[in-house]
Amino acid sequence: MKFSIIRCARAVLHVTDLAAARDFYERVLGFVVTEADESHLYLRGLEEYHHHSLLLKKAPRPAVEALGYKVGSEQELEALYEWFAAQTLQPKWLEAGSQRAVGRAFRVQDSSGLPLEFFAHMDKTERLLQRYDLHRGARVQRIDHFNCAVTDVKRAYDFYVHGLGFACSEYTETEDGKLWAAWLHRKQNVHDLALMNGKGPRLHHIGFWLPDPLSLIHACDVLAAAGYAANIERGPGRHGLSNAFFVYLRDPDGHRIELYNGDYLTSDPDFPPIRWDLDDPRRQTFWGHAAPDSWFEEASVVLDVHSGQPIEPDEPTLAKQKPTFLI
Amino acid sequence: MKFSIIRCARAVLHVTDLAAARDFYERVLGFVVTEADESHLYLRGLEEYHHHSLLLKKAPRPAVEALGYKVGSEQELEALYEWFAAQTLQPKWLEAGSQRAVGRAFRVQDSSGLPLEFFAHMDKTERLLQRYDLHRGARVQRIDHFNCAVTDVKRAYDFYVHGLGFACSEYTETEDGKLWAAWLHRKQNVHDLALMNGKGPRLHHIGFWLPDPLSLIHACDVLAAAGYAANIERGPGRHGLSNAFFVYLRDPDGHRIELYNGDYLTSDPDFPPIRWDLDDPRRQTFWGHAAPDSWFEEASVVLDVHSGQPIEPDEPTLAKQKPTFLI
Amino acid sequence: MKFSIIRCARAVLHVTDLAAARDFYERVLGFVVTEADESHLYLRGLEEYHHHSLLLKKAPRPAVEALGYKVGSEQELEALYEWFAAQTLQPKWLEAGSQRAVGRAFRVQDSSGLPLEFFAHMDKTERLLQRYDLHRGARVQRIDHFNCAVTDVKRAYDFYVHGLGFACSEYTETEDGKLWAAWLHRKQNVHDLALMNGKGPRLHHIGFWLPDPLSLIHACDVLAAAGYAANIERGPGRHGLSNAFFVYLRDPDGHRIELYNGDYLTSDPDFPPIRWDLDDPRRQTFWGHAAPDSWFEEASVVLDVHSGQPIEPDEPTLAKQKPTFLI
Amino acid sequence: MKFSIIRCARAVLHVTDLAAARDFYERVLGFVVTEADESHLYLRGLEEYHHHSLLLKKAPRPAVEALGYKVGSEQELEALYEWFAAQTLQPKWLEAGSQRAVGRAFRVQDSSGLPLEFFAHMDKTERLLQRYDLHRGARVQRIDHFNCAVTDVKRAYDFYVHGLGFACSEYTETEDGKLWAAWLHRKQNVHDLALMNGKGPRLHHIGFWLPDPLSLIHACDVLAAAGYAANIERGPGRHGLSNAFFVYLRDPDGHRIELYNGDYLTSDPDFPPIRWDLDDPRRQTFWGHAAPDSWFEEASVVLDVHSGQPIEPDEPTLAKQKPTFLI
Repeated sequence: MKFSIIRCARAVLHVTDLAAARDFYERVLGFVVTEADESHLYLRGLEEYHHHSLLLKKAPRPAVEALGYKVGSEQELEALYEWFAAQTLQPKWLEAGSQRAVGRAFRVQDSSGLPLEFFAHMDKTERLLQRYDLHRGARVQRIDHFNCAVTDVKRAYDFYVHGLGFACSEYTETEDGKLWAAWLHRKQNVHDLALMNGKGPRLHHIGFWLPDPLSLIHACDVLAAAGYAANIERGPGRHGLSNAFFVYLRDPDGHRIELYNGDYLTSDPDFPPIRWDLDDPRRQTFWGHAAPDSWFEEASVVLDVHSGQPIEPDEPTLAKQKPTFLI
Repeated sequence: MKFSIIRCARAVLHVTDLAAARDFYERVLGFVVTEADESHLYLRGLEEYHHHSLLLKKAPRPAVEALGYKVGSEQELEALYEWFAAQTLQPKWLEAGSQRAVGRAFRVQDSSGLPLEFFAHMDKTERLLQRYDLHRGARVQRIDHFNCAVTDVKRAYDFYVHGLGFACSEYTETEDGKLWAAWLHRKQNVHDLALMNGKGPRLHHIGFWLPDPLSLIHACDVLAAAGYAANIERGPGRHGLSNAFFVYLRDPDGHRIELYNGDYLTSDPDFPPIRWDLDDPRRQTFWGHAAPDSWFEEASVVLDVHSGQPIEPDEPTLAKQKPTFLI
Repeated sequence: MKFSIIRCARAVLHVTDLAAARDFYERVLGFVVTEADESHLYLRGLEEYHHHSLLLKKAPRPAVEALGYKVGSEQELEALYEWFAAQTLQPKWLEAGSQRAVGRAFRVQDSSGLPLEFFAHMDKTERLLQRYDLHRGARVQRIDHFNCAVTDVKRAYDFYVHGLGFACSEYTETEDGKLWAAWLHRKQNVHDLALMNGKGPRLHHIGFWLPDPLSLIHACDVLAAAGYAANIERGPGRHGLSNAFFVYLRDPDGHRIELYNGDYLTSDPDFPPIRWDLDDPRRQTFWGHAAPDSWFEEASVVLDVHSGQPIEPDEPTLAKQKPTFLI
Repeated sequence: MKFSIIRCARAVLHVTDLAAARDFYERVLGFVVTEADESHLYLRGLEEYHHHSLLLKKAPRPAVEALGYKVGSEQELEALYEWFAAQTLQPKWLEAGSQRAVGRAFRVQDSSGLPLEFFAHMDKTERLLQRYDLHRGARVQRIDHFNCAVTDVKRAYDFYVHGLGFACSEYTETEDGKLWAAWLHRKQNVHDLALMNGKGPRLHHIGFWLPDPLSLIHACDVLAAAGYAANIERGPGRHGLSNAFFVYLRDPDGHRIELYNGDYLTSDPDFPPIRWDLDDPRRQTFWGHAAPDSWFEEASVVLDVHSGQPIEPDEPTLAKQKPTFLI
């Protein structure tokens, strides 16, 4: 596999109130806290034996610091760095020891402006998959994917598919054949990264995998009982695209989380990507439910990996189309 | 128990296209067809050993002909008839043999104008509860309740509770203590009949009981796959009131069906009815989702038991309040 | 309803180690502790608004002190006392105040020697049905039934059905028409009390109701993760008789608990009891799994309501038959 | 990935009665029949877009003709053939056109005597993943793994891991460090192939993936209702090893099928294989249930790829150990 990028592996988010975030992610959703200090919260799912898949940092404003991918080896990491450098994208090393639990890493803005991070090593910790006595809330198993709004989906698609060797499982086109959205993967399910036409670069949501559909319903019940009903933004419902059973949440800082279960295996290199027409009713939410405006309008601001400053999003190149329903 | 009214037992609905109805109820939702002819379709759930709980009659316009309750004995039926007669409500006997599979029955408009039917006997048939190889779609188990819009909930409440001996499990009041809705039962769960303030008399929906929450999700998937996504009107979601996991459907004639699972036992005579304030956010759908306008506005017209003509609904006595969210 | 017996309402069990019992019932199975002191543990399910449905008392030896039923009113309680007295069964009053949270009660050995208790009042407490953030383990909702071994099922059946007005939902007969087991109810599901031919009087198990089948699977996972795999005695499986999805557990003192979901409504007085032949393979566990010997041999000893001493069980009148499989 | 072996892809089984097999696999378990003639039945799961994953051939005696793996390309297939030839294992080409829907393939006995097949192409057909209206029975999604008994697990492990580049997710060792069983994968879940110490070479079972745990329970209910209770051999239960929720069935010819849900992602090359001690109670079925003797003793005979004759199984090199419980 080109560059041996394994999978999306962690997100580094800025949040304004770590105690509020911890209540939401740990007490209600059931994430496991591996470690915490006054400015960091390291979270993982029940199946994860790595140190964390979600790092929350205390900051004055909510933002996305990095979307991290795991690479197969230090050699592959080095090769990948060189490739990014050759694209004149100015990758930047973060030496081992500079980040808690993560080995040597580099960060780089992708061609769409998304702040990426790559690393080959993360410290391991106890996996709690069979500690059912500790499972709570949504019983989140593992990080699954990033969904990002970019201004030019076709350009981003070429970057990830032709440049980095991602495979495409499903995609949406406009009537006149323009690429409107794409679901791309390295690991063998529907996606590690979805790209959607929109004001970008922004992070639309992070998807986390759940063990079964009832855990998702229970998550809604627990959220509501714990006073977080207003944080349930959309769903539960079935995605036509990806076939997943889903619900979208907003965390206390407005970052969007998708709880996700039920997509399919994409192990085969000859898997034929599934095409959806933007005006095809099948592209809609499978059960025909409208998503709220906030789901189309709001997303998390991303940071410049060099300056640490927020990147002002641009308007998309395709006329912004908000379908009646959208996956 | 006063008058030994056992439970809501069957609905008699007029539909315009029996073939369309059969596709919806039998093929997609998995109701069992006990019998059918060119103008009748007799349907039952998997747990039901009575001939039917839903009778669809071919007619020029959709309407509700009768909401039927089962009574404990012929003697009790006679006593109940006399009580209605004494209320000058003009009950009307339908002798045994005049209706398929149903014994002697009487019909009467209740104090709100709803067309009721009472009978003590219905023919029995094979129960398919353990014929899992025949279970399909929503795996509907049994009829659960009627939900009706009436112009004066307090008056209807008094009629059913003080007149007929129904018990109240939950109710909603306005800020100034006016009764806005009530959930009333004879059998030992949350309701056989819900009354809601609204343009009435109309039938808002018929609730059917499902064996578990996943059957409800599967029902949505099957509906969508079979081309009925537009018939999913609201949900799935959790009711705060009643605690049920629900989804609302519209049948091909617009009659509203609720698939329902997860309420609780109300066996005890000292069960304290649960009060909800119309402005209390807890009264909302538990997960905080808005119901569509159609759910508030549309309901099925009922027929006069004597003339067979539609009853023109009146405006409710309480200022019509559509909360942001409503159970 | 004769004597207005509402339902099985609480069990009073003797256990040798309250801390061990609390770990099992509260931490692992998710029962709610209403109150506890050094010699009592008062437990309830998530749906229950009464003070408790399971009272564990510290004692030198495990035993069953009482099987408690709730009655509709103090007047009915009095009438019921008189009836027992007339049977020369020597009921014994426990005045209000003598037991925590329970009103005036009486205890009596039934015709088979089972220690019964009847009361009309129990203190109410907060119902946690919608506090999903507190639900854990098996998410036990409420007490459902007692299952008892008696030496003469026919005699016990007559006592409960003809004497006390219980209804029969299902029963098992031998080839030659002898009653081998019977499922009897007051509330409107399959049973409040099951009677089985066996060495008696003994309590075979107490059934608790769960909200859905996945809670039962999760309970097994939590039990195993918490070190209680050896306490899972039988199942999970489907009962042919009652149609329930079940698992049988043994608590730290050996008392048997059934987690139970999925039976059906028995509201109608003309419900035809379902007959099973002892040699009919359908009577077996629906999926055809054998129960372990312990399930047939072991049961909890009951106490004499007057002396407080254990009652030595007698052999059953019917030749003890252990079928290959048994419900 | 070495040789680009993608995943286990199909099994070719001999059955004595195709009509009986079709009833079991299609009507009861819900497999989709892609094609059938008087001597072949081509079956696939709901997620599968390839022509079939299970081919049943009419034959005088039940047997395993081939365990098929998909390879990434024709070039890789050629390279793999050469590798087998270099091992003097005498692979044998089956040219394109000689098998229905399958491209050029070769067959070879592996070092343990198991009859393997490799191919790079299979015809595609309609995927029914979202045709929920057609889903039935167990709702089988896709083939998941082969489990085989071999006489020398260490030798077979070396062949697959060091020879063919399979990765190991979990394994069982005896007290003195002998390899007793191993779970090996190419696709990114727990296994494509499990090897167990036993009389071999034989096929112990084929695992099929289900979408959720309730589909597995429903499958048991449907099997029982359809008269196949005796075909439920073991479970449902939770595997400690692999964490899967499982049930084992025997088809009408005695071939063993596992319905399987709930293992985990194994995408990372540095995944640390999980070691289980043969005497470690954690290795047991997670809930502590014993497997029946048949599960340890019986397995399907495999055929010689050249002669087509059954291979007489040999005794295992490790003293045959049947633990009290085994995964």
